[in-house]
Amino acid sequence: MSGYPSLSVPPESGFFRSRWVDPPSGIEFHDPSSLAVGFRAAGVSCGIQGSGATDLGAVICDADEVSSSILLTANAAAAAPVRVCRENLDQSGIRAVIVNSGNANASTGDQGILDALAMRDELASGLGLAADSVAVAETGVIGVPLQMETVLGGIPDLVSALAGHTASQGAARFSEAIMTTDKWPKRVSLSVDGITLSAQAKGAGMIEPGFATMLCFIQTDALVPEPVPVLRQAVDSSFERITVDGQMSTNDTVLLQATGTSGRELPPGLLDAVLLQLALEIVSDGEGASRVGRARVTGAADPEEAEMVARKIANSPLVKTALLGRDPNWGRIAQAAGHALAGQDIGELGPDVIEAEDIAGDGREADLTLRLDQGDAEAHVYFSDLTHEYIVINAEYTT
Amino acid sequence: MSGYPSLSVPPESGFFRSRWVDPPSGIEFHDPSSLAVGFRAAGVSCGIQGSGATDLGAVICDADEVSSSILLTANAAAAAPVRVCRENLDQSGIRAVIVNSGNANASTGDQGILDALAMRDELASGLGLAADSVAVAETGVIGVPLQMETVLGGIPDLVSALAGHTASQGAARFSEAIMTTDKWPKRVSLSVDGITLSAQAKGAGMIEPGFATMLCFIQTDALVPEPVPVLRQAVDSSFERITVDGQMSTNDTVLLQATGTSGRELPPGLLDAVLLQLALEIVSDGEGASRVGRARVTGAADPEEAEMVARKIANSPLVKTALLGRDPNWGRIAQAAGHALAGQDIGELGPDVIEAEDIAGDGREADLTLRLDQGDAEAHVYFSDLTHEYIVINAEYTT
Repeated sequence: MSGYPSLSVPPESGFFRSRWVDPPSGIEFHDPSSLAVGFRAAGVSCGIQGSGATDLGAVICDADEVSSSILLTANAAAAAPVRVCRENLDQSGIRAVIVNSGNANASTGDQGILDALAMRDELASGLGLAADSVAVAETGVIGVPLQMETVLGGIPDLVSALAGHTASQGAARFSEAIMTTDKWPKRVSLSVDGITLSAQAKGAGMIEPGFATMLCFIQTDALVPEPVPVLRQAVDSSFERITVDGQMSTNDTVLLQATGTSGRELPPGLLDAVLLQLALEIVSDGEGASRVGRARVTGAADPEEAEMVARKIANSPLVKTALLGRDPNWGRIAQAAGHALAGQDIGELGPDVIEAEDIAGDGREADLTLRLDQGDAEAHVYFSDLTHEYIVINAEYTT
Repeated sequence: MSGYPSLSVPPESGFFRSRWVDPPSGIEFHDPSSLAVGFRAAGVSCGIQGSGATDLGAVICDADEVSSSILLTANAAAAAPVRVCRENLDQSGIRAVIVNSGNANASTGDQGILDALAMRDELASGLGLAADSVAVAETGVIGVPLQMETVLGGIPDLVSALAGHTASQGAARFSEAIMTTDKWPKRVSLSVDGITLSAQAKGAGMIEPGFATMLCFIQTDALVPEPVPVLRQAVDSSFERITVDGQMSTNDTVLLQATGTSGRELPPGLLDAVLLQLALEIVSDGEGASRVGRARVTGAADPEEAEMVARKIANSPLVKTALLGRDPNWGRIAQAAGHALAGQDIGELGPDVIEAEDIAGDGREADLTLRLDQGDAEAHVYFSDLTHEYIVINAEYTT
């Protein structure tokens, strides 16, 4: 409908395909259905999504000792599984995670909490783990009670599937189990410098409450003695830097599990590169997205202002439609920046301080840079274009 | 393209047609090409827009004494005419205003300031007024120098047209002169309780830098001894409460001129009702808009939070596409509210605290109400839906 070719296709040229990602050298890629050493995963069809779709999955770490960190949405109306992970989980020793797709178990009240606890307890029991060492994540429709018979009925199959897999198998079906509107699975399995690392993500839109949410699970046998700041920093430069439609999900979850059995530390930059590429896959697979832009602001008075301006540009529907239209419309960038700093006076902004040239080309990625002269802070945000398909998905296919 | 009937038609049932506007009783409407007693207006074609469109206009107050107030955009990258009105204008004694459409004279640097001063001076000279008693407003493309020979060439015609009109005439051509992408003129002329009042507005999108901006001019012979707080309050409950695409123009201007010759004060609620109806006309004429929603939040902790939540709902592309799709999708409202208050915990929000029923009907106006239980503050924001036409206008018809 847009008149532009759709570029929404799965990765065709290796995992680290974005110009903005700078992975360490020496990486060896593995079959993406494999996992880091010491982890198993599985996915089964329990019937939440219907039509035989894989909709219930789990990852388990075989090592007794695990170093973990979990980041949860800041949404003030967070879903039941997020509340359970906040309040009833040993966040530094997460052995396993159970995930379903098709129902977010959000806005489901006290029953939602009980249901999230029950599915977690059932998996913990089947695997012989302490209940508070199992995380739970859910994605799908908001406001519909979880079909507990369906979910609980699937857990024995899930436990059997986990037992049946050899170590380091099952990531493929687990990836399927966490997908909703995703057009392609987002996952990687690699080794470098004597460690192995695997990751699986889902998301196509920061939020689409008909389906929903960004989830990411990372497994490694590297030593990660300080998992909380390590994950926080990698997420700050990846999942916290993307926007599809400026919305924040009730269910977003990122989980890092590290066994340390390799005896080696994570190579510098590896986790950042993996999470940034996965984040960019999510933007690229954003609802209706055909292109990805990077809005970069330099010369801001302080980091907060740099961030505010970059976000206002990235979320401007005028900039997003200009990205679709191959229109290097610097006036829209100037207007968005002036809006972000409303009440201040930064003078008029002309084409001399705005670079938006590669927006006019047919490449999948485009850079927009605004140079302010207020200081030396900078920030950037990755965003998708706004297309007819976004409206079709969100206005016309709802029930 | 959307599959829904376009409701973007001019007013057919009187000026105060919105359910949300509550005008005082006893109003008599006049031919909208007339003005309040003691004012003259005119519009001419000087050639900025080309193809003979009326693109240069002025309003003058015949009384020597005038009580006035002007509100200007807070955009940090404000346009030249806004800077001239901020710095070189006697804001409490504005006798006349000159306006052009087709060029916003924004991001035009020092030359833009000189050009805005020159067009203002030329009109002041032609009318025998002090230069600092004349305001200037412009709307149109950003970043293109004003064609000064064209503009200055049109001013003698404008002065002649003002002289040729009898008192209280010329609002029709002035309304045309300020229009850009507007589908219909937004104006009213009325009398009530012994006073007369007229107003002309333009805007179709908070900003569309290809064209652009919200402008509004109000004339009255009522006594308005405190024009600054009177205008501020009426704008706070009208133009400050609307959003089409969450963008803020570099050129927004609202001007109130009051002669006081009637010897009567403004009836309570009149200015608020006129500006709210004009603001709703702008939303209703928003780029691609087919429906107008009111996002109302009650029970917030304080007015700032109520406002933040209402704006996040009103600007959510998911809520805007739900308004288009007649989809009473309360999950999207819950998600937007939770996002607005990110970092807090307001519990899960269910359908019991959200009313979105009339969204499912075919009416032009729909109410969405969210009841929080954090306190007793409330706020509301009017917004348009997000349609295919918005993308067509902003992605496909740019140059």
